[in-house]
Amino acid sequence: MHKEIQSRDVFYVSDGTAITCETLGHVVLGQFAFEANEKTFPFVETEDKVCELLKRIQHSYERDGVKPLVFFSMVIPEIRERLMEAPAFFYDVLESMVQRVAEDTQLEPKPKLQRSRSVGKDSDTYFDRISAIEYTLAHDDGVSLRDLEHADIILLGVSRSGKTPTSLYMAMQFGLRVVNYPFIAEDMKMLRLLPEFEFHRHKLFGLTIDAARLTQIRENRLSGSEYASTEQCEQEVNTIESLFRREAISYINTTALSVEEITTRVLEKTGLKRRLF
Amino acid sequence: MHKEIQSRDVFYVSDGTAITCETLGHVVLGQFAFEANEKTFPFVETEDKVCELLKRIQHSYERDGVKPLVFFSMVIPEIRERLMEAPAFFYDVLESMVQRVAEDTQLEPKPKLQRSRSVGKDSDTYFDRISAIEYTLAHDDGVSLRDLEHADIILLGVSRSGKTPTSLYMAMQFGLRVVNYPFIAEDMKMLRLLPEFEFHRHKLFGLTIDAARLTQIRENRLSGSEYASTEQCEQEVNTIESLFRREAISYINTTALSVEEITTRVLEKTGLKRRLF
Repeated sequence: MHKEIQSRDVFYVSDGTAITCETLGHVVLGQFAFEANEKTFPFVETEDKVCELLKRIQHSYERDGVKPLVFFSMVIPEIRERLMEAPAFFYDVLESMVQRVAEDTQLEPKPKLQRSRSVGKDSDTYFDRISAIEYTLAHDDGVSLRDLEHADIILLGVSRSGKTPTSLYMAMQFGLRVVNYPFIAEDMKMLRLLPEFEFHRHKLFGLTIDAARLTQIRENRLSGSEYASTEQCEQEVNTIESLFRREAISYINTTALSVEEITTRVLEKTGLKRRLF
Repeated sequence: MHKEIQSRDVFYVSDGTAITCETLGHVVLGQFAFEANEKTFPFVETEDKVCELLKRIQHSYERDGVKPLVFFSMVIPEIRERLMEAPAFFYDVLESMVQRVAEDTQLEPKPKLQRSRSVGKDSDTYFDRISAIEYTLAHDDGVSLRDLEHADIILLGVSRSGKTPTSLYMAMQFGLRVVNYPFIAEDMKMLRLLPEFEFHRHKLFGLTIDAARLTQIRENRLSGSEYASTEQCEQEVNTIESLFRREAISYINTTALSVEEITTRVLEKTGLKRRLF
């Protein structure tokens, strides 16, 4: 070895988007202490592209004196074969699992390009997804309360409790139509639910957050404001949690959660299913 | 076997969100012809939850007479051991790859809960992501052209060429700050670039689309309108492609692409890197 290795070159390679390789490779590498220099090579479908990539891998190997890691998925057999010529450690993110499923189920796999959510193949999915995003954008932050009968879920919470990112994630990744509504001072004072929501009670779901974290998030946005003050945040959080309890609205605390975790917990609690993968 | 199997029960199980299991399992199963009845069990962290799950798997096995498929990732050893008691085919979505990386690199893995983008662990990432989403929302569809110096990229295109979903995907999944601007009739007539964009030319990127597909998408939205007519769509597409060429703005045709594919191709063409995983 030419030097002490504390970092490694990592290549994500696919004849598709390589997003699955990135996602999985990144999680796998998260279990190791070395620093990963990650580079992504999507749509490696031609001899030219694979040649260029082979040069890059060769260069990395010569420079570091150790083989870089290559997480890949590759359907085109000739390109796959060429890729294997590179001086690298290879991890096929799908192959071994596909083979084991084939053995276990005694069914033949039919390899195809990993074209997740491609338009050509499944135009309905395309429109479902786009219309979920549009619906959710149109119903973000209380902008519109029309057409609630088409909502899959209605998220309630104080400003900065995570409603907008969660709503957009649910729409984009899961195909759900999401309304979100921020509780503003007036509603708070009256401790009331808007009459528009009465008919859709079963769709209501609350997000809350620790007052200290809310202060931190609001400070990040409007430093020194009344809006970001500890008193204001505590009072809003207490009020909305009282409202959720009084109205028997399920809710979760988002303080330590990512949007993925919030989404997953909301689906778990409501029994709502994702509409697309 | 009790019956001819054309469908299989599939369980996605994790002590985290199970999103990685779902994503990967879904792609693997896409290579097989059987219908998958997919059920997700996230946050299986307790004896109670794993017991409930074991019952569900047992019930599936007794009903179908064949073992269901379980795609899982599980860090808690006791829960993992209990899960293995179920009558199922098991696919650990990370384990074999982590072990192979450990062997290849001669480094010890340190298993940890798969808490993708968790807030506790990495608060900066949380704020980066939220602010990318906010920036992108504030700059959607030409709403604002202020603060362009903080944009990572500026997407241009006619209405319904895929700008908004792509922008939100880039922000949500890759942490990029995206401006998108629809070309409206007036700009088109003058075949001009807004003066606001001059200083940020290097950030401009065009999306175009086949006129026939554009007609279909617009019909889906406003059936029978002038806006959706073949003539209007053809004229807009021709005009904007001329503009892109004249102004030497890189562009891609989004006709047969998903938002993931558009995003990946844009990054590939611009050299822009994702800011988060």
